[in-house]
Amino acid sequence: MTINLKNFLSDKSKLSKMGEFQDLKPLDGLEVSSISADLYDNGRDDLALFYFKEGANYATLSTSNSIVSETITWNQKSNKKIIKGLLVNTKNANTFTGKQGYESIEILAKSLSKSLTLRESKKAEGISETIKIKDLVFASTGIIGETFPTEQISNRIPDLVSKLRDDQNKLIWIKTASAIMTTDTKPKLAYDEFTFNNKIIRIAAIAKGSGMIAPNLATMLSFIFTDADIPSNLLKVLLKKVIATTFNAITVDSDQSTNDMVSIFSTRKIKIGHNRGVNDPVIQKFETSLKNVCLNLAKQIVVDGEGAKKFLTIKVVNSKSLSSAKKIAFSVANSPLVKTAVAGEDPNWGRVVMGIGKSGEKIDQNKISVKFGDFLLAENGAPIENVDLKKIREYMKWDSILIEINLNLGTDTFECYTCDFTHDYIDINADYKNST
Amino acid sequence: MTINLKNFLSDKSKLSKMGEFQDLKPLDGLEVSSISADLYDNGRDDLALFYFKEGANYATLSTSNSIVSETITWNQKSNKKIIKGLLVNTKNANTFTGKQGYESIEILAKSLSKSLTLRESKKAEGISETIKIKDLVFASTGIIGETFPTEQISNRIPDLVSKLRDDQNKLIWIKTASAIMTTDTKPKLAYDEFTFNNKIIRIAAIAKGSGMIAPNLATMLSFIFTDADIPSNLLKVLLKKVIATTFNAITVDSDQSTNDMVSIFSTRKIKIGHNRGVNDPVIQKFETSLKNVCLNLAKQIVVDGEGAKKFLTIKVVNSKSLSSAKKIAFSVANSPLVKTAVAGEDPNWGRVVMGIGKSGEKIDQNKISVKFGDFLLAENGAPIENVDLKKIREYMKWDSILIEINLNLGTDTFECYTCDFTHDYIDINADYKNST
Repeated sequence: MTINLKNFLSDKSKLSKMGEFQDLKPLDGLEVSSISADLYDNGRDDLALFYFKEGANYATLSTSNSIVSETITWNQKSNKKIIKGLLVNTKNANTFTGKQGYESIEILAKSLSKSLTLRESKKAEGISETIKIKDLVFASTGIIGETFPTEQISNRIPDLVSKLRDDQNKLIWIKTASAIMTTDTKPKLAYDEFTFNNKIIRIAAIAKGSGMIAPNLATMLSFIFTDADIPSNLLKVLLKKVIATTFNAITVDSDQSTNDMVSIFSTRKIKIGHNRGVNDPVIQKFETSLKNVCLNLAKQIVVDGEGAKKFLTIKVVNSKSLSSAKKIAFSVANSPLVKTAVAGEDPNWGRVVMGIGKSGEKIDQNKISVKFGDFLLAENGAPIENVDLKKIREYMKWDSILIEINLNLGTDTFECYTCDFTHDYIDINADYKNST
Repeated sequence: MTINLKNFLSDKSKLSKMGEFQDLKPLDGLEVSSISADLYDNGRDDLALFYFKEGANYATLSTSNSIVSETITWNQKSNKKIIKGLLVNTKNANTFTGKQGYESIEILAKSLSKSLTLRESKKAEGISETIKIKDLVFASTGIIGETFPTEQISNRIPDLVSKLRDDQNKLIWIKTASAIMTTDTKPKLAYDEFTFNNKIIRIAAIAKGSGMIAPNLATMLSFIFTDADIPSNLLKVLLKKVIATTFNAITVDSDQSTNDMVSIFSTRKIKIGHNRGVNDPVIQKFETSLKNVCLNLAKQIVVDGEGAKKFLTIKVVNSKSLSSAKKIAFSVANSPLVKTAVAGEDPNWGRVVMGIGKSGEKIDQNKISVKFGDFLLAENGAPIENVDLKKIREYMKWDSILIEINLNLGTDTFECYTCDFTHDYIDINADYKNST
């Protein structure tokens, strides 16, 4: 169920697959480390630390679930301007843990602040500022409602700090991304860069998530790092814009985590000049790169959806509004009957039509057409006669299936991404008791 | 996948199970018949006819899916005051069939009107009124978007009419209920009666449905018959009241059919006197019996939910409003992660908490408690320490599981019913291509 990274990296068949990962570059101003606190009882890495010696601008968006992790409560009270570090643990979500959960963050923050301050003072031979606990943010993913393993994590913090390194090569990024996984079957990384005034601006990011809430475990987390000196409030605006069509356009099982979090950190190393707004050409270039990275990660999460065998794109075109297109796309994407039909490689457009109708959006049944790939199956509220079922069944065997719904009511379009619904989903989510 | 009724009734092991069905009585003023038009290619009954020689008061409620069966469009244009007959077919939903679908109903209505008129004129030796096509209503359940088999059904109408009988005993009711099934594994019947002025008032009802939309097939249908002379508008008021806590309190897979329909017919044989309102003692007695019948059928549908192994009650108490309790109960009941956890017999209250939060309702996390059966697992926003996990795991092995959520915010309560989510659901809904 869980990957032991040591095994992952020593397994030749897996190493040979490293080519499937992008070649992420180091980010000036960022140090990372990961380590095992043995939370899974099998030695896999379960803690990741991100440290910004000179601080980072920071923006974060978190779950709209009205029950949230204590980490989210902590972060909301943190110093939102400049962040010094982010600690991520897996295995325990620190959600519905009450007072014990919140106080455990305080304990970890103090321990982390102490270790980081000590490290800096050694380097600076005694003269350095103290790292405040409010400069630290946290993320947790895993089981809801179990006592948080404060001491087990806290004991590993000095080692975690001692392993920080600033030369993040591809292997380090893979190791770090692996340390935040729960039921993910592989680490998720993405990278993009662009040139501005002869300087290269980098965006490197990792994510985890395979059910919106995974089995015993949980959550979609993504951490994005850049060296472009963009202020926190502008980072937030860009992040909000970009996730609407990336992280917020995916669904695995319609369940929504209490811990979901997407954060972006800027180490401010590449100066781009002040007072740039969203319409500034550099910021627009940055937005495009940010979107590339987020869409890449979002799709990786869907591909790694629990039990997923097929990637499914639901595209709604010619809608009377964007919000209507979005509701209809998700209504279809979240339908267990549509997802099981795709698993069974059946072009069951009748279930798609049911999904359109159950959205509650006003449509005109007689104007709707439905395509699977290039194959038109229904038009003007009635089935197409004489479709080439043999060819369509061939298409349904592909790994990636497009379902396109034309409402013929307007000009707005929205597409979302999901996966099929297979026996393996039930295995992972019902039979997990028997696995670790 | 489908039951051949002949086999069902000749199979001794099944016949011996007839004790599990209630003993439904005949309804004065109602005649029924069922027959095979061989729509399934295996000889099973697939047509059912309900005939009211002297007409019936009638009320119906249908799906809120914005895409509906042509039968629902037809019925909305029918004579709503007095209905003479109801024809139900299975295998084809007559949905998204366009003009062909609607016109096929007109053809069937004409054929049925002709056969019924002929039968009456023979009985009355030539003097009888014509049965109008607008006195007839229809219901279909099955595959969406396939050409409707008009001729195949139409050819069987004379035989269907000739088989009408008014002595509905238990076996006849079982045969009739079986004729409207799709992926149901057993027919669904319910009965209640009460005494008023020394007269017995009867309510007999049948239903079908096992996924909200079943695999290739579809829909929840229920037909309720009474001899109490209650006007159509009052029947509608009572039906609306009663379904809120019965048929509208169940969910199998969160998908909603394009064909869902609940109808009640009164043969008007038992006079109860005019001008009785909802608060009249007889009407209240009737409402109680109607609710018994509907709740009984609704629970049978959940028990027969596709792949269901366990019956699951989600009860929300001390909510600030009924609508809030309802949203939270359904948010939990529709969560694939809650349903798979129950299938895996794991008391995963963390997923229940996630389901509460994702409802979007305002709650106070620190006031919530969650019980599985009699076992309190979380209270005041934190887990209970030292729960007897062994006993709780024993409880999770039961066929019927109660999850009780106390919001501690008000006084309103709502409970809904669902089933667990198993491998068999995927079998039925993904692998159905390989079965008939």
